[in-house]
Amino acid sequence: MPRYKLTIEYDGTPFCGWQRQADRMSVQQALEEAVERFSGEVVTSQAAGRTDAGVHALGQVAHIDLSKDWDPFRIREAMNYHLRAFPVVIVECEAVGTEFEARFSAIARHYEYRILTRRAPPALERNQVWHVPKPLDVDAMHAAAQRILGRHDFTTFRSSECQAKSPIRTLDVFEVTGDNEVIAVTASARSFLHHQVRSMVGALKLVGEGKWSPDDFRAALDAADRSRCGGMAPSSGLYLTGVDYP
Amino acid sequence: MPRYKLTIEYDGTPFCGWQRQADRMSVQQALEEAVERFSGEVVTSQAAGRTDAGVHALGQVAHIDLSKDWDPFRIREAMNYHLRAFPVVIVECEAVGTEFEARFSAIARHYEYRILTRRAPPALERNQVWHVPKPLDVDAMHAAAQRILGRHDFTTFRSSECQAKSPIRTLDVFEVTGDNEVIAVTASARSFLHHQVRSMVGALKLVGEGKWSPDDFRAALDAADRSRCGGMAPSSGLYLTGVDYP
Repeated sequence: MPRYKLTIEYDGTPFCGWQRQADRMSVQQALEEAVERFSGEVVTSQAAGRTDAGVHALGQVAHIDLSKDWDPFRIREAMNYHLRAFPVVIVECEAVGTEFEARFSAIARHYEYRILTRRAPPALERNQVWHVPKPLDVDAMHAAAQRILGRHDFTTFRSSECQAKSPIRTLDVFEVTGDNEVIAVTASARSFLHHQVRSMVGALKLVGEGKWSPDDFRAALDAADRSRCGGMAPSSGLYLTGVDYP
Repeated sequence: MPRYKLTIEYDGTPFCGWQRQADRMSVQQALEEAVERFSGEVVTSQAAGRTDAGVHALGQVAHIDLSKDWDPFRIREAMNYHLRAFPVVIVECEAVGTEFEARFSAIARHYEYRILTRRAPPALERNQVWHVPKPLDVDAMHAAAQRILGRHDFTTFRSSECQAKSPIRTLDVFEVTGDNEVIAVTASARSFLHHQVRSMVGALKLVGEGKWSPDDFRAALDAADRSRCGGMAPSSGLYLTGVDYP
C-alpha cells in the first residue's frame, strides 16, 4: 500500500491532544476523518509526537497508508479542504516507502516553548504562550539549561504516568533566548519523555525568578526524583516545531 | 477631570472595528464597559486609529477621563480583569494632562501588514495574516513601495467612503521585508486615509505577482483614481503597531 508522510501544523487549543479519545476531539481523529472524506478509506495515522491537550505543532509528522496511488499534492489539497472546520493544516505531503515510520524512523524531535513576560496578559496569542507576569532572568535560565545537556536519567522531569521503559534520554539542544518580554526555549533530542519539555521549562522558570540557581536546577536532575521537578509549564506555550528523519 | 492614556492590544476578529455600532460589539464598547464596571463611570473613549472590523492592534492608544484620581496600575489591572471575556488587553496605562488627545495629539501612526505565502492555509494564525497561496517577489514589492514615499494625493488608495477633507498624506515609511513564506509590510505616517494601508498592500500584491511593475504601482498613485487601486488586502493581516506623541 502506498504510504504518505504528512507534515502538520495545528493549534492544539480545542483538542484533547494528538491521540484519539472516546469522548473528545483529537488532532488524530480530525485528520483521519479528513482522509476518509476524500478517499473513502478508514485509516489509522501514526505521529512522531503524541502531543498533549493544548500543545501546538508547526511541524508534526504523521504517516498514513492508502490502498490507491494519489498525487501527494491532491492529498494535501483535499485534506485541507476537509479540515477547514479545525485549526489543523497539512503543510506538506509526500509519498514515502513503507520502511518509513513517522514515529520510529525519527532521529530528532524539536520543540519550542514560548513565554510572554509582562504584566498584561496576551490578547493576540491567547492560549499560544505561557503568560508569566514578571520578568525572568534569561541569562540565568540559559546557563541552567546548559547544565543538563547530554545523556541523563530524566526521572525528575518525567510525568509519573510516562510509559517509556527507560528514563534515560539524550538532550542535544536546550537553549533560552529572548528579550524583556518574549522568551523562547528550544529543545532537541532523539526522543523525549512524557511531559519532559514542560517539566524542564517549569523548573527553568524558578531559575528565571531567582528562586533556583543553575546548580539547583542541575541538582534537581541528579536527584532523579519527580517530586524535585519544581512545577510544570502549561501546555499553551509548547510547540512541536519539527521532526528529523535520516 | 484626570485623563488616562491607554495602550491597547487586541485581536480584531470578533469585533466590528474600534468604533461603537448599535448592533455589533466593538473594541470601544468592550473597553468602555470595562471602565464602567470598575469605576461606575460611563465614559467615551477616543482612539488614535479607528481600526476596521477584523483589524488588529499591538499598540492602539486611547484616552479616557475619570472624575476621580486612580492609580494607573490599578486601572490597568481592573480593566484587564473586566476585559477577560474579550481578546482585548490594556498593555499600559498612564496619567496624562488634559491637553493630551489620543487622536489629535498623535504625530505618527505605525502599521504592519502580515502576509503568509504558502500553499497551505495558516492553522495557528487564522484571521491574523493574509493567506496568499503563491510566492511573491519581495524585492519588487519593496522597490515599488519606495516609489510612493513622501507627500502625495492618495485618492487611488483611499476608500470611496473616506471622510477626510483632503486626500493628501505624507508616507514616511513603506517597507516590504520577509523570506519565502512570511512577508511584513510596514507603513508609517502622521495619519492615513480610510483603507489606505490595505489598498496600498492590495496593489503591492500585484507587483509581487509580476502583474504590475513598480512603475505601474507609481502610475496608479499618480492617476489619483480609486478605480486604479487594484484590489484591497483583507483586514485580517493588518496591525496598528504603535502611535507616537510629542
